[in-house]
Amino acid sequence: MHAGFGITVEATDGTARAGTLATWHGSVPTPLFMPVATLASVKGVDIGRVAETGAGMILANTYHLHLRPGEEIVAEGGGLARFMGWNGPTLTDSGGFQVFSLAKQVKVTEEGAFFRSHIDGSAIDLTPERAIHIQERLGADVAMQLDEVVALPADRERVDAAMRRSLRWAERCLAARTRPDQAMFGIVQGGLDGDLRQESAEALRALPFEGFAVGGLSVGEGPEAMGEALRATTPHLPVDKPRYLMGVGQPQDIVNAVAAGIDMFDCVLPTRCGRNSLVYTFAGQVRLRNACHATDQRPLEEGCPCLACRHSRSYIRHLFMAGEMLGPVLASIHNLTFYQRLVARLRAAIVAGEFAVVAADLLPRFTTVGE
Amino acid sequence: MHAGFGITVEATDGTARAGTLATWHGSVPTPLFMPVATLASVKGVDIGRVAETGAGMILANTYHLHLRPGEEIVAEGGGLARFMGWNGPTLTDSGGFQVFSLAKQVKVTEEGAFFRSHIDGSAIDLTPERAIHIQERLGADVAMQLDEVVALPADRERVDAAMRRSLRWAERCLAARTRPDQAMFGIVQGGLDGDLRQESAEALRALPFEGFAVGGLSVGEGPEAMGEALRATTPHLPVDKPRYLMGVGQPQDIVNAVAAGIDMFDCVLPTRCGRNSLVYTFAGQVRLRNACHATDQRPLEEGCPCLACRHSRSYIRHLFMAGEMLGPVLASIHNLTFYQRLVARLRAAIVAGEFAVVAADLLPRFTTVGE
Repeated sequence: MHAGFGITVEATDGTARAGTLATWHGSVPTPLFMPVATLASVKGVDIGRVAETGAGMILANTYHLHLRPGEEIVAEGGGLARFMGWNGPTLTDSGGFQVFSLAKQVKVTEEGAFFRSHIDGSAIDLTPERAIHIQERLGADVAMQLDEVVALPADRERVDAAMRRSLRWAERCLAARTRPDQAMFGIVQGGLDGDLRQESAEALRALPFEGFAVGGLSVGEGPEAMGEALRATTPHLPVDKPRYLMGVGQPQDIVNAVAAGIDMFDCVLPTRCGRNSLVYTFAGQVRLRNACHATDQRPLEEGCPCLACRHSRSYIRHLFMAGEMLGPVLASIHNLTFYQRLVARLRAAIVAGEFAVVAADLLPRFTTVGE
Repeated sequence: MHAGFGITVEATDGTARAGTLATWHGSVPTPLFMPVATLASVKGVDIGRVAETGAGMILANTYHLHLRPGEEIVAEGGGLARFMGWNGPTLTDSGGFQVFSLAKQVKVTEEGAFFRSHIDGSAIDLTPERAIHIQERLGADVAMQLDEVVALPADRERVDAAMRRSLRWAERCLAARTRPDQAMFGIVQGGLDGDLRQESAEALRALPFEGFAVGGLSVGEGPEAMGEALRATTPHLPVDKPRYLMGVGQPQDIVNAVAAGIDMFDCVLPTRCGRNSLVYTFAGQVRLRNACHATDQRPLEEGCPCLACRHSRSYIRHLFMAGEMLGPVLASIHNLTFYQRLVARLRAAIVAGEFAVVAADLLPRFTTVGE
């Protein structure tokens, strides 16, 4: 393990873990939820307000930053954290997922991914070596290997081939690294096949990664299938390294994944839903545009310490109905705060040995519609 | 004068004045610049960040709030200030200017203005009595009389008639008021005719207003004509009541108007220009989209204490080029801070008896393009 980086697991409850992730830019408690700063900005929320939500670590997207402003401009600005004014740890993905979901005319060979930018159509190649080079220029605390993502459902043969190619790319990514101050995570693939997930995890753990991610989930497979895939994976990952479930997810997904032993999460849902006036609370989701909130003097959530909850629902609904930018900003701040409160609550439950009780209390709340 | 409201002039320098405006929601130093919260929101900037710019008093638009969410919803939320979470004084305009600039099928009679909403086409009437009723429901510290605004250039006959109608409406507004905790300002009209401005001011000062505004300027007449109209007006206003130049303006306009004895300003320019990546500095305007800022590691302005100036120009330019909401937010915060620093600098100059020197130093800066 690179000096300066690693997880200390401080408590377990069943397979759930509570710990501390040390990085070169500070330590953060786990389970950990990373807000997504796609283009080095958590959409609409200034970095001080992001910190106030309780966030400890931020994710940014390599694909997007490579296109705009380009990794050299980020590097000239002192690297991702300094460029965006964030005084804490950061993580960049490899760009693989965005290539498969956003780019045009994608062609994947053993060498890498070749595609056209969704912004200006320019031709771009993303090999494992180039994915690492770009991430080293971006300079986050954690870089991710390039993997091949397969849309589910898919033939086992296709999933198997992508998993094995991802393993070969994992070795190329490790061989390409040069920075002593950047951790690298391998990514477990294998779709919904438990034996492929196990094989991927066992092969990756033999490689000198500082952590491991579970990729290719939350792509429409549903919570049961996701849970199964996770339970087929985490027992085969080392206990002394962080485990990161990429791009997940809904609050109930996070509870289930923490139960399965995941330490780290990222997701665009709090900000994306916030921009669309959908608000998370511990009593369920609230659709702010509903007319019942027109004169609703309650905050979004009683007891929530966030900036948005100093206002009434009536006010924030008005902002959305009138098309004021501040509506999306405030709802995003609330949702980001909600996710931080959620992982903090799960962490406290693990430490107290009450995880099962707390999870059983929380899960039904997240599938109801709040008032 | 209503108890709880009034200006204390603490220093003069030529015709420029520095003082303190007392209101029911606190006291604020003058000259005073009010950010515009059109729909009870300073576009994109949360109210805590607005306070951090140094703003002491905020303006909102009666016409817009009447349409959305409606004054009753604002009243149920505790009035304008509490509705938007602002812990300080507020002012509402009468809606007159927006009726003449935004509304459709406007018909003005002696009774009032009749028009259709620019949002949904619904028929609305705005008489002097109704303008005051709506503003009393909104509950700002300062309400404005309804006036008839004439687009310039206009025939003297047309300007004269609108000025006299505005005087009659002024009396009707005063007769309609019922709140003991809301000041009301009369509005001087008269276009660019000095004698009409003088006649309007002298007639208004005989009425029991708590302050006086200069209306109908900054509508394309140019800085020289604006200055002339101001100098024809302010000598005829009482020295012991606040003077407010509505909807003005560019930094140089503010310097010139303070020189002419104006105490209060509001303008959408800092936020509107900010949203369009135009940044004010004491070395001139900066167009952030210019390629020269792509790797510019300087802040928007050296020595500026604002949130945006913790970032590089390179970062904020990137936000604009990538279409990130945070770009407009940060540029708005900077520009709002710039306007507060400008009026604070003018105030300090008046107190120090150095206004002419400071104004002569500042004015040429505002007509150059910054680097």
